[in-house]
Amino acid sequence: MFSKINIVLVNTSHPGNIGSSARAMKVMGFSNLSLVNPKNFPSEQATALAVGCSDVLKEAKVFPNLREALNENMINIGFTSRNRKAAIPNMTIEKCIDYIHHNKNYTYNIIFGNEQSGLSNEELLMCDYIVTLPTHKNYKSINLSAAVQIFTYELFKTCTDTIFEMDTNSKLATSKEKDFFYQQLIVLLMDTGFITEKNNKSLTKKIHILFNKARLEEDEVNILHGILSSIRKKMNI
Amino acid sequence: MFSKINIVLVNTSHPGNIGSSARAMKVMGFSNLSLVNPKNFPSEQATALAVGCSDVLKEAKVFPNLREALNENMINIGFTSRNRKAAIPNMTIEKCIDYIHHNKNYTYNIIFGNEQSGLSNEELLMCDYIVTLPTHKNYKSINLSAAVQIFTYELFKTCTDTIFEMDTNSKLATSKEKDFFYQQLIVLLMDTGFITEKNNKSLTKKIHILFNKARLEEDEVNILHGILSSIRKKMNI
Repeated sequence: MFSKINIVLVNTSHPGNIGSSARAMKVMGFSNLSLVNPKNFPSEQATALAVGCSDVLKEAKVFPNLREALNENMINIGFTSRNRKAAIPNMTIEKCIDYIHHNKNYTYNIIFGNEQSGLSNEELLMCDYIVTLPTHKNYKSINLSAAVQIFTYELFKTCTDTIFEMDTNSKLATSKEKDFFYQQLIVLLMDTGFITEKNNKSLTKKIHILFNKARLEEDEVNILHGILSSIRKKMNI
Repeated sequence: MFSKINIVLVNTSHPGNIGSSARAMKVMGFSNLSLVNPKNFPSEQATALAVGCSDVLKEAKVFPNLREALNENMINIGFTSRNRKAAIPNMTIEKCIDYIHHNKNYTYNIIFGNEQSGLSNEELLMCDYIVTLPTHKNYKSINLSAAVQIFTYELFKTCTDTIFEMDTNSKLATSKEKDFFYQQLIVLLMDTGFITEKNNKSLTKKIHILFNKARLEEDEVNILHGILSSIRKKMNI
């Protein structure tokens, strides 16, 4: 189970938070860490706070942007404190844990944004689900590594408690595969005139959300590509 | 409820942990903090890490020893990672939360020891109950403020019964609306040659499954219709 979870920290400002997050992971058995554009890494401060967890930091992968960080895994779950209007499916932390617990044949990116600004709208669109941790109404600013700790703690608690079954043979599409389909679809819809310069942003967003909700499998992405090329062929473009 | 909980940090070495603990408290609605013999307090580092929580630090009470710190409250619950032989009743974190939740007329000291050595035997003997947080067998060293965060989070979650619901402004498409879209899509794909007499049955089924998984909303069905007609127009059929 533990190997199927990849913690992704995006645009982290304070290296101490990277160290604390590594510790929050390891104490619950998790070790896959991806860092997207960290402000300062490797750093002494990160190492100092990752007491006994330098292995997690050493093995951490660093990426220039979120898209590249997500490639290898299937389901992207973003943690955000903000209430967005974007209609990306929201889950409670309990639902999130339950979902992961019952879908063990998938692999997951668990994504945490910058300490101040969280995940950008563009980054949120790469998420299949969004989780907002419960906080008190008077003060909602949860520390980054505390959020990582709550997630790893909840999942550890649930997964060590029970014996679980693998389900179905279905194989979810990776983020990369889905992205390639979205690109192809959007190019086609520009050619048909459905997507224009004016509506580009909002329609692109809606298309992402719509298909992300379907949790596309590999086979399904192939079918969708087949559909696109049959249309292209008929349109002669 | 929140006022009945007093977080007690004993012999804390790193002032940063005091600041982080204050934040871990406030984000879940708790504000009563007692410090027993802190190595360095008040301190700049504590304040720096208590982003927006300087009120908790300002109101914190400082005591020379644990016994004096415990005076005002009824039930003492010590958090420790060590398995002690002392016959103090052990509780799981779930039992602990449940206990507090069902005994709201009591007041509680929730006690956390030094970062390295935890609570001493003498201090443990002042506890009515001991809680050990679950951790992975290979690495059990949970950060002090992370432990405070898990406790406050668990209690907050239980006591507020927060229910995060899916956005209720969205309106799911009816079966009829979805069916009409499926028909239109299938007719188009027959025209492009993607659906043939041979694969008709299996592809039709797969398309239904794919889009059903997305739990389409009314707006989304309209977008999909828009896509189909832009394609038809371009194909001139």
